[in-house]
Amino acid sequence: MGKFIVIGERIHCISPVIKKAMEEKDPAPILKRAEEQLAAGATYLDVNIGPAEKNGEDLMKWAVTLLQENFDNVPLCLDTANRKAIEAGISVYNRSKGKPIVNSADAGDRIENIDLAAANDAIAIALCAKTGIPSDNDERMAYCQEMLERGIGLGMEAEDLWFDPLFLVIKGMQDKQLDVLGFIKDLSDMGLNSTGGLSNVSNMTPKHIRPILDSTTVAMAMYCGLTSAIANPCDVRLMETIKSADIIKNNSLYADSFLEI
Amino acid sequence: MGKFIVIGERIHCISPVIKKAMEEKDPAPILKRAEEQLAAGATYLDVNIGPAEKNGEDLMKWAVTLLQENFDNVPLCLDTANRKAIEAGISVYNRSKGKPIVNSADAGDRIENIDLAAANDAIAIALCAKTGIPSDNDERMAYCQEMLERGIGLGMEAEDLWFDPLFLVIKGMQDKQLDVLGFIKDLSDMGLNSTGGLSNVSNMTPKHIRPILDSTTVAMAMYCGLTSAIANPCDVRLMETIKSADIIKNNSLYADSFLEI
Repeated sequence: MGKFIVIGERIHCISPVIKKAMEEKDPAPILKRAEEQLAAGATYLDVNIGPAEKNGEDLMKWAVTLLQENFDNVPLCLDTANRKAIEAGISVYNRSKGKPIVNSADAGDRIENIDLAAANDAIAIALCAKTGIPSDNDERMAYCQEMLERGIGLGMEAEDLWFDPLFLVIKGMQDKQLDVLGFIKDLSDMGLNSTGGLSNVSNMTPKHIRPILDSTTVAMAMYCGLTSAIANPCDVRLMETIKSADIIKNNSLYADSFLEI
Repeated sequence: MGKFIVIGERIHCISPVIKKAMEEKDPAPILKRAEEQLAAGATYLDVNIGPAEKNGEDLMKWAVTLLQENFDNVPLCLDTANRKAIEAGISVYNRSKGKPIVNSADAGDRIENIDLAAANDAIAIALCAKTGIPSDNDERMAYCQEMLERGIGLGMEAEDLWFDPLFLVIKGMQDKQLDVLGFIKDLSDMGLNSTGGLSNVSNMTPKHIRPILDSTTVAMAMYCGLTSAIANPCDVRLMETIKSADIIKNNSLYADSFLEI
């Protein structure tokens, strides 16, 4: 098994600093967050430009070029509801460090993002949901199969579909956590890649608790076979746990310095 | 499922302070460590008096009485190679907060500790090993079955055998970690209780790394169904992880204050 892949989530227009930088095309705040995340151990960087209905194509091209020029063609995850913006981003994307990721498809309104990924030899994050939260793992698996068949029918490799089980908030959906973990195990048993927005689990909990719940969840999810997460690599406890889980799973070799690598 | 049970490991004659207190029958250092561990969330306290060949019976009686009188009949895990000392401890043990635990039996020279537990209506920690480290999970399971049959044949309830998979050191046996976790899963699938010396995994690693490796391991092991561990409850990160894993497994109900409980 390969090492766990962290997709850094911190270049996101929900942050006022990043929103402003995207509006003004000011490189500094974006480069700062990129550098911090890569130094902390992110492999991919997510670039979330929001709905970006007006200037999405131009903005995504600018962001992709900016980040890849400054960070040795860092691989990116292109995150917007604007499909043309994703295609525009891919048109200027350098693949030398990894394929672009389309974030994201689902089994509902966003199913065509599978087609987009297939047409552009990209990876697709495939959310195993259609409308709302699936009621059980049979429903999750039906959506997974639907997207898998669609992607493969369009010539994609199965490994380029990263299935998202949809992590659920503990505060309110505590009794569903083992379902989600069990579904990750099902995906892993099928040999499929997986990812997801890990910090969903600790949403609405006190700030000091979030790294604790996120870390415990990622250790369990990695045992189940999760291969990637969209997460904050600057959460030290989380990264320590991910690196330790990779050691325990024998994905990376133990050395006394393994946390610093 | 019940909440995870932590057996506090810090009353151990390997500690010079505790060794001296046991030699001199000085209550203060022992009571201090008991109080710290109970405040930190231990359910059981392990009382390790070493081989105790000379004065074991007297010493164990003294320690059991001391701890139970001062801490509301706290349940104890009687830990020594001296069988007569364990029996002596049980003879003065108050069961109102839980049965005594015999630490420990194995499938080799210590198999008769199963008989001891059966004869005294005690719990037995049953190490799934005979001589040295089992080569695979088939061997572990053979030892488990041997001890299970012996205990049941003597009238024990299966739930009173807490099977120890034998946690192995990462530094040197990194490639065996998933075996151990898989064996915990096998025990859990059989409905059996389990426990073990968790900190074995981080033995010989730098001090600052130990809580990180131990915590990651316990989260994975609890996902697999581990029901207890012999561990240091004063390791804050470890206890935070255990409490979080109990939340994720829905063994205890989420509240914003769950880490303080």
